[in-house]
Amino acid sequence: MPALDSVLTCLDRELDASLERLKDLLRIPSISTDPAYAQEVRRAAEWLAADLSAIGFEAQIRETTGHPMVVAHHGGAGLDKPHVLFYGHYDVQPVDPLNLWETDPFDPQVKEMPDGTRRITGRGSADDKGQLMTFVEACRAFIGETGTLPCRVTIFLEGEEESGSPSLIPFLEANRAELTADVALVCDTSMWNRETPAISTSLRGLVGEEITVKAATRDLHSGHYGGAAANPIRILSRILADIHDADGRVTIPGFYDGVPDISDEMRAIWDGLGFSESEFLGEIGLWVPSGEKGRTVLEQVWARPTAEFNGIEGGYTGKGFKTVIAAQAHAKVSFRLVFDQDPVAIRENFRDFVRARIPADCEVEFHEHGGSAAIQLPYDSALIQNARQALTEEWGKPAVMIGMGGSIPVVGEFKDRLGMPSLLIGFGLDDDRIHSPNEKYEMSSFAKGQRSWARVLAALGDKAAI
Amino acid sequence: MPALDSVLTCLDRELDASLERLKDLLRIPSISTDPAYAQEVRRAAEWLAADLSAIGFEAQIRETTGHPMVVAHHGGAGLDKPHVLFYGHYDVQPVDPLNLWETDPFDPQVKEMPDGTRRITGRGSADDKGQLMTFVEACRAFIGETGTLPCRVTIFLEGEEESGSPSLIPFLEANRAELTADVALVCDTSMWNRETPAISTSLRGLVGEEITVKAATRDLHSGHYGGAAANPIRILSRILADIHDADGRVTIPGFYDGVPDISDEMRAIWDGLGFSESEFLGEIGLWVPSGEKGRTVLEQVWARPTAEFNGIEGGYTGKGFKTVIAAQAHAKVSFRLVFDQDPVAIRENFRDFVRARIPADCEVEFHEHGGSAAIQLPYDSALIQNARQALTEEWGKPAVMIGMGGSIPVVGEFKDRLGMPSLLIGFGLDDDRIHSPNEKYEMSSFAKGQRSWARVLAALGDKAAI
Repeated sequence: MPALDSVLTCLDRELDASLERLKDLLRIPSISTDPAYAQEVRRAAEWLAADLSAIGFEAQIRETTGHPMVVAHHGGAGLDKPHVLFYGHYDVQPVDPLNLWETDPFDPQVKEMPDGTRRITGRGSADDKGQLMTFVEACRAFIGETGTLPCRVTIFLEGEEESGSPSLIPFLEANRAELTADVALVCDTSMWNRETPAISTSLRGLVGEEITVKAATRDLHSGHYGGAAANPIRILSRILADIHDADGRVTIPGFYDGVPDISDEMRAIWDGLGFSESEFLGEIGLWVPSGEKGRTVLEQVWARPTAEFNGIEGGYTGKGFKTVIAAQAHAKVSFRLVFDQDPVAIRENFRDFVRARIPADCEVEFHEHGGSAAIQLPYDSALIQNARQALTEEWGKPAVMIGMGGSIPVVGEFKDRLGMPSLLIGFGLDDDRIHSPNEKYEMSSFAKGQRSWARVLAALGDKAAI
Repeated sequence: MPALDSVLTCLDRELDASLERLKDLLRIPSISTDPAYAQEVRRAAEWLAADLSAIGFEAQIRETTGHPMVVAHHGGAGLDKPHVLFYGHYDVQPVDPLNLWETDPFDPQVKEMPDGTRRITGRGSADDKGQLMTFVEACRAFIGETGTLPCRVTIFLEGEEESGSPSLIPFLEANRAELTADVALVCDTSMWNRETPAISTSLRGLVGEEITVKAATRDLHSGHYGGAAANPIRILSRILADIHDADGRVTIPGFYDGVPDISDEMRAIWDGLGFSESEFLGEIGLWVPSGEKGRTVLEQVWARPTAEFNGIEGGYTGKGFKTVIAAQAHAKVSFRLVFDQDPVAIRENFRDFVRARIPADCEVEFHEHGGSAAIQLPYDSALIQNARQALTEEWGKPAVMIGMGGSIPVVGEFKDRLGMPSLLIGFGLDDDRIHSPNEKYEMSSFAKGQRSWARVLAALGDKAAI
């Protein structure tokens, strides 16, 4: 494969230039969930469209009612070649608490660590700007070295992944023909560890809910009213506490409908990974698995559903003390779904569960934040076997098949709305601190990720693989 | 009593001028709990010391390690007269949420209501600047009309009442002789209703605690770690939910030690007040008493201890959604104490209760915010009978004896450290919205409060009353 060799050589030679491009993109604070950053989100989209145009894609900013999409097409080596759609997202999570960042989240740095490894710091470095640029750089090198790409490639970049993707479904529906390829390549996942590449074959789904409990018509003095007036923090705490039983199981009626135990085959694959529960939890300072009793940690994060409390607020939270009974209290709650759990039913059952715990003189309001079912991908297709082979050649270690605790709703939408399967390959590491202060992306992930995509693209150029 | 008559006439004549003085004081944002306002707190102390000097008191700012005290003495009609100490506080509560205020909390206004009554708006108008100025104005008129006061008067004004009074005890201990009078007059309480004056004979105590639950060493992605890593909001919700049982009783061991049922005599007095539970709760939009089942609302707020959750915060609380598992979560919890409950034991038992619910790999930190026992005052002394008589003459309705759900820790300190009894008279109303947005003080409270103090001072001039 002389063409692939020259592409790989080019990627190595141009690594510094590709790093500068990534840093340019990371400097744009494209926080999609906060309306104050809307212009920055757009700026990131414009940056990407311009870069893709520059390397030979027909690239466009496509408007939505929210943040725009970037869609770019390249005809590749011809219509007889497979058509792949690469999906990534250019928006990022908020950065609070800002004081915990060691460096400015939007002033990316390359840090050399004591062990000689290098990492790129900044919000979005791993999730997902660093990851998506591995694919863009692979395309740039392929086109530069060979004049074209081994497949037809559509690049589809979203700006609302971190804020519930409100525009995704309408956009897919409105552009079904344009976006339907033979397979979607989704680069928002992790490696098994620093040396071992992985293909993810399951993803948990997600239901997000925000609830507001309202009691008195105003904040009250806890001396005058305490003991008589409903306290919304007390009501909310009771609701949240009731959601788990003493064994860590979720008590919402019907919650485990559609949740089988994992197959013996999958259990055997996972047992073979050599996963260390104590290392996994130890890295974050913990050692007591908090999930369902009697399940391994891998089951808890890959194959079991959860209810998590992502935020809570009520009453006086400033310095000092205020003897107040608040008029309202809020919580953000999310459910990770597995197998065949129905997001619509989960949401409705949760709301009924909450309503049943609201006193007659109080009220509750719900606000929906996205919902998606879990994804199970086949793990024995020719497509996955070819991709495994390409990854194994790049990393020198067999690529493994793993589950993913997180959710990538777009994978479900590709399947349900476009009938398009996905191949989930990513180069993140578990300690990348995505969604946290001091997010980083390994330089090795960035460099070998580019080379991996070049190999995968070459392997997929053979239509029989699809 | 021609002297008293001329004092009352003077108060009526000078009402507009006294109102302007109060508005000047209300314009100073003396929020004691927030260090950013420390200079404003001092400015309020200076304003009061200057005003008291101007009317003939020997007034001083007295430094503490926190906010200063104001102490002012007037010799009155001689050493053979009773010595009274008037206590008030010139600091105020924070004003958040600011957007709920109809007018600037520090730009006081006089509003005429549809029923013809007038009210003074602003933070501190009722708690406690308006109340303390009723006493100052009574002294001003007495000195202006008669050249002196009917008693020896010490005025003692604190600037840390709304932030746990950290300097109070050291200051009392260091100035015991100077501050010990025959009786303390404490004006931080309410009337029974708009027409009926009241003397409070019981106050609830207060224990304030802030707890921080710490789990992982950093914020986590709820997809990667959800179901395996401890969630501090879940732990905190469980702790708070466990504090009350289904009947609204507090479950902390030993919590009800020292809590008898009220006497039949007190029950008869309270039953005679014609209290309407539905009006009391209806005014704040509620109708279901939230306290211990089987207790009247008056018992719940005057004679029963409570656990209240005054604030809670953790995780992502901004707009939109963030799938994070927080590293920490916080709550501010307070207990209102009655009868002989021991604040030290309550705090320790609470902390044990919390610690027992912290997983082995998590931590909890406690921060103390004040503690004081409940107060029971005798309700048949000559002092109280004389004061009742003075109030009854001013308002034309018999003054009633009531309990107070709130806490005035200084009353306990006066009793324990100075051996000084207190007389609790105030002119606030239940709907004054103290500690809430749109705090107000009735013009009738301000005007007739001044006249009431003039009458009470005259009545206390007779040493036999003490």
